[in-house]
Amino acid sequence: MKFASDNWSGAAPEISEALKKHADGFATAYGDSELDREIEQKIADIFERECAVFFVGTGTAANSLAAAAVAKPGGVVFCQSEAHLLANEGGAPEFLTSGGRMVPVSGNDGKMNADTLAAVVARYPNHFNHLGQGTLVSITQSTEAGTVYSLDEIEAIGDIAKQAELPLHMDGARFANGLVQLGCSPAEMTWKRGVDMVSFGGTKNGCWCAEALLVFKDAIVENFKFNRKRMGHLFSKTRFISAQFEAYLEDGLWLKLAKHSNAIGEKLEAAIRSSNKVRLAWESQSNQVFFIAKRADAEEMLEKGASFYPFATPRSLEGTLLPNEQVYRLVASFNSTEDDVKAFQALL
Amino acid sequence: MKFASDNWSGAAPEISEALKKHADGFATAYGDSELDREIEQKIADIFERECAVFFVGTGTAANSLAAAAVAKPGGVVFCQSEAHLLANEGGAPEFLTSGGRMVPVSGNDGKMNADTLAAVVARYPNHFNHLGQGTLVSITQSTEAGTVYSLDEIEAIGDIAKQAELPLHMDGARFANGLVQLGCSPAEMTWKRGVDMVSFGGTKNGCWCAEALLVFKDAIVENFKFNRKRMGHLFSKTRFISAQFEAYLEDGLWLKLAKHSNAIGEKLEAAIRSSNKVRLAWESQSNQVFFIAKRADAEEMLEKGASFYPFATPRSLEGTLLPNEQVYRLVASFNSTEDDVKAFQALL
Amino acid sequence: MKFASDNWSGAAPEISEALKKHADGFATAYGDSELDREIEQKIADIFERECAVFFVGTGTAANSLAAAAVAKPGGVVFCQSEAHLLANEGGAPEFLTSGGRMVPVSGNDGKMNADTLAAVVARYPNHFNHLGQGTLVSITQSTEAGTVYSLDEIEAIGDIAKQAELPLHMDGARFANGLVQLGCSPAEMTWKRGVDMVSFGGTKNGCWCAEALLVFKDAIVENFKFNRKRMGHLFSKTRFISAQFEAYLEDGLWLKLAKHSNAIGEKLEAAIRSSNKVRLAWESQSNQVFFIAKRADAEEMLEKGASFYPFATPRSLEGTLLPNEQVYRLVASFNSTEDDVKAFQALL
Amino acid sequence: MKFASDNWSGAAPEISEALKKHADGFATAYGDSELDREIEQKIADIFERECAVFFVGTGTAANSLAAAAVAKPGGVVFCQSEAHLLANEGGAPEFLTSGGRMVPVSGNDGKMNADTLAAVVARYPNHFNHLGQGTLVSITQSTEAGTVYSLDEIEAIGDIAKQAELPLHMDGARFANGLVQLGCSPAEMTWKRGVDMVSFGGTKNGCWCAEALLVFKDAIVENFKFNRKRMGHLFSKTRFISAQFEAYLEDGLWLKLAKHSNAIGEKLEAAIRSSNKVRLAWESQSNQVFFIAKRADAEEMLEKGASFYPFATPRSLEGTLLPNEQVYRLVASFNSTEDDVKAFQALL
Repeated sequence: MKFASDNWSGAAPEISEALKKHADGFATAYGDSELDREIEQKIADIFERECAVFFVGTGTAANSLAAAAVAKPGGVVFCQSEAHLLANEGGAPEFLTSGGRMVPVSGNDGKMNADTLAAVVARYPNHFNHLGQGTLVSITQSTEAGTVYSLDEIEAIGDIAKQAELPLHMDGARFANGLVQLGCSPAEMTWKRGVDMVSFGGTKNGCWCAEALLVFKDAIVENFKFNRKRMGHLFSKTRFISAQFEAYLEDGLWLKLAKHSNAIGEKLEAAIRSSNKVRLAWESQSNQVFFIAKRADAEEMLEKGASFYPFATPRSLEGTLLPNEQVYRLVASFNSTEDDVKAFQALL
Repeated sequence: MKFASDNWSGAAPEISEALKKHADGFATAYGDSELDREIEQKIADIFERECAVFFVGTGTAANSLAAAAVAKPGGVVFCQSEAHLLANEGGAPEFLTSGGRMVPVSGNDGKMNADTLAAVVARYPNHFNHLGQGTLVSITQSTEAGTVYSLDEIEAIGDIAKQAELPLHMDGARFANGLVQLGCSPAEMTWKRGVDMVSFGGTKNGCWCAEALLVFKDAIVENFKFNRKRMGHLFSKTRFISAQFEAYLEDGLWLKLAKHSNAIGEKLEAAIRSSNKVRLAWESQSNQVFFIAKRADAEEMLEKGASFYPFATPRSLEGTLLPNEQVYRLVASFNSTEDDVKAFQALL
Repeated sequence: MKFASDNWSGAAPEISEALKKHADGFATAYGDSELDREIEQKIADIFERECAVFFVGTGTAANSLAAAAVAKPGGVVFCQSEAHLLANEGGAPEFLTSGGRMVPVSGNDGKMNADTLAAVVARYPNHFNHLGQGTLVSITQSTEAGTVYSLDEIEAIGDIAKQAELPLHMDGARFANGLVQLGCSPAEMTWKRGVDMVSFGGTKNGCWCAEALLVFKDAIVENFKFNRKRMGHLFSKTRFISAQFEAYLEDGLWLKLAKHSNAIGEKLEAAIRSSNKVRLAWESQSNQVFFIAKRADAEEMLEKGASFYPFATPRSLEGTLLPNEQVYRLVASFNSTEDDVKAFQALL
Repeated sequence: MKFASDNWSGAAPEISEALKKHADGFATAYGDSELDREIEQKIADIFERECAVFFVGTGTAANSLAAAAVAKPGGVVFCQSEAHLLANEGGAPEFLTSGGRMVPVSGNDGKMNADTLAAVVARYPNHFNHLGQGTLVSITQSTEAGTVYSLDEIEAIGDIAKQAELPLHMDGARFANGLVQLGCSPAEMTWKRGVDMVSFGGTKNGCWCAEALLVFKDAIVENFKFNRKRMGHLFSKTRFISAQFEAYLEDGLWLKLAKHSNAIGEKLEAAIRSSNKVRLAWESQSNQVFFIAKRADAEEMLEKGASFYPFATPRSLEGTLLPNEQVYRLVASFNSTEDDVKAFQALL
């Protein structure tokens, strides 16, 4: 019943095996090993186009690297109100962009609204130096609210970013969960819809620490390498990241793991629907499920061995909760089991 | 014959096994798992005193975190002329201290000279804001020149740092190699000699990516946690670093590995001494060995399968090399073998 | 009819005279002249307590210096939603704090609400490094909306800041306008109500470029000097700022000028009240007056020689304006005349 | 006998008059007044080409703005060993470039040597991210040692900068003193010799605080405006800087003042030459003169009312001074008089 976060899970056996397999011998350090080159190419193949790949150790680093590499003086990043960049990185993007500002763009279902984006972007006209200048648009797929942007929604945002001459970044900490939900190709969900950079996360989906920033836009690649180094994220033995991605991408393991956690999410949703004690906060489309419970009931469930965290009440639910109620989040992991769901259901 | 760097080696089998062992199940993320706590305590035990432990992914991050956490406006770090902080971090310490300056302090044998340190520190009187203010002294043990500071030498530097009210940091990327050479305890080599912080490196000595910044001085601990997060170095699944340290520190594996690479270093030194073709640049005391060769000879060795890098000529050797000669560096790793040495010797 | 900004006015004759008077001869540079010392003491006398005084060239610099000197990793500044720090400094505070975040705290009448502040502060518990840590509370007196905090309102905010162990800063770009409105002493409006730092602005009230950051809290003074230098704001000939303050503070010139611009503001308000064409947006208490007009009417007034800018519609007025209406701001200056008001009134 | 610094002098009467003249009325703020435009054009005329002009308040700001606007991750600035950027800005350039490094390039007579520059630049090959990447070359004219680069010397440095694709900046805190010494046009001394940016300083030569960064290279102009704002150096009443430049540039006042201080420098040099007590350290070419004296003698002169500072012994003089001797610096100002020289001579 450990549904606190997909960060609480360890690693898939295939990942540990891959690390063991590549432990022997010697390989060029600092991102220049044969395995690094091979995996970079593999990622390019999967995304069906050339791309620059920057391995880093954390999602915070990947997202911040994206923002840092396109930073400008007085720069602002437009991101979802619930984005990790805004709500969970402890000031890393502001620090690593040397003072950039994260500007929230709101919307329903944990998504950025394209029209709202257009309106917010318009507040930062070029050359008005009293406020700042736009440098990046960032969306999260799947979102922090467990929802998934449709291809049309991504495209609408991509169009506005393009008009504003701003690169579009996708925080893909849960990229695979969004992808298998849409059932499309990685290319369809990204650069074919106007996405220029992807934080391609493996950590939350069964790796130890495998994150890669993918850059599809040649014109902006130049600074990433130096930026990664000066952030302290150029690993000497990069092959320990590459090795994780090797196993992760082999035979569709990554998709299999994401399908599994999404399916567990669906079962959690069903369990909540069938409960008289708690109710679903909103429909999920991925491995994150949100429910509303009385605080006392939630406390009791935690005492009985469940793990989960409270979640900030979104605007859309303001005024609909009783004073003794709270929204809670469940996150299914690659190694969550149906028994976990059953045990959880027993508490409802 | 891969003597390019101890960064080219992979990982000791015990490290991979430990990762496999901890792959299952769930554990609190972001540095708060039971294993994290356990390993932090283990490190404290080994150093024979309470200390704050900050796991990070790279040596660059550990060193920069040390500098960042004590940074002040106009701050300067006094470090060995050959220090990684100055020569190999791509501007990370300057960036992550928001503009600190790395000030070189020279000495013989790749070591900082204590008297020179005192003289350089004196150039930055408190409250003279045109130049800057000292924030940190940093030494590297074992040094970039393969030498090892004696306990007295460390203490002399520690005394000057203390007089100047500057914390003393030890870049221990090759901490174990220095330690086994001196044959003393970790406590003797660090806080008992005035060292306040240690970048305790496991990566170069048989781990995948295991680095920890140890802080012995309570008064300066406060900012490290927030600094690590905003550098993007708070890993979600911290236990994959803890697990490496678990195996690394168990049954003295770390000391065994360092003794091995030092011993290989000694054999390499012997091989060079017995050669007519090349000559020893200076005496080594650890796993790094430096020799002088004609460039053409070195090229031939590289073509025949050896790996090693040229090394900048130190001041002490200026004028002693022929125009067609160059200093080269050999680094023995935890998994270098006597056969490697023999094969290399055959090229001499 | 130049009511665009009090920044559009030049300088009071007394200011130019003072500059002329001190132009001769030689004086120690970089903040250490006798005149600098004298004026620092004069400011301390006026504020009835010892204080550290840091002369800088712009309000942006004074406000950013306040934020920078107390900055911490992951630091956040709590400020009014309309504060210059948030809306008009072009990212200077974020940059000069090396990545701090400006967090808006809303309220009515352009003021920060104390209860809202308490709630927002509570979202940043100590040691939760995923979000950040509070470093400063900043209020603006008189406010960007032309209103003036009462002494009780300042005290209520001061109490919350104190409980949260956060220093309280007052952006006093229009300090004098607020002071003469309240009719109290500078001490009463600042440190006696919990204010620890004041951006004491002379520029908008008849100086060329005279700004001083006043610091009442000994414990936080240490870093300001080095911070000012590394921001490029340590002027060599500091006496040209001191000289301005000398004239500004002599015989109550600063209060006289502020009373004048407030009085002109009152007359502008009266003119708007008596108009059928435009209406008052809200009650002003200082030299800034806000009115609502049809865009076409405003355009006509501008064409006829008036100068003023549109102002962002505050939340409290949302939904009350017609589609063709807009809020506009008038700012009276030390050198605005009754004739200016009459000419403006003629347009209404 | 105030020869401590040209920063100790106040302002020429023409400067104070110009400030008085422009004190009345209203003008667009933040760099957009008619006077601002006019003076920008005047500077362009004097330099015989279009250029972007950025008014700032201090030389520290002008130099740092130059470095900041072309900064890159891991960036390094190559500057004279004695440059203000390295020795006197309190870490401002490192801070305002978000962590750039100032790399010293040595030479004789306080000048950067072109061949040494080429050698140092070559140590930072493109794309080697472990060390950093070059972003700027900066020279100071006239130099900190009172010498003046010849046009050929500037051109030689310009050629190397161009080959390395690095912009060339001239710190012209004492621009006029160098110019009148060479007797050439501003264009000849700058862009016609490969200079891309000039810190055009008026402060040391009779202004209160008039500094302008001139940029001759269109391709790099974009970021300056936002950088200046976020450094807090966009003055609201910019016309008080423009007004100073108006008087400064009118009827060649700037050249007249510089000729005067250079001439006083020459007389000081003659006085030293004729003394038995002190001797000239090296030949000066501008308003700064350096002499060697016994410390006791210098102390006596200071007690008798002279003002001057000791100066760090340059490498070229190492070993030539007696243990009780020291190098001292005299700086002649626009308002130094022949009587000052005579009084000083009487002490020799």
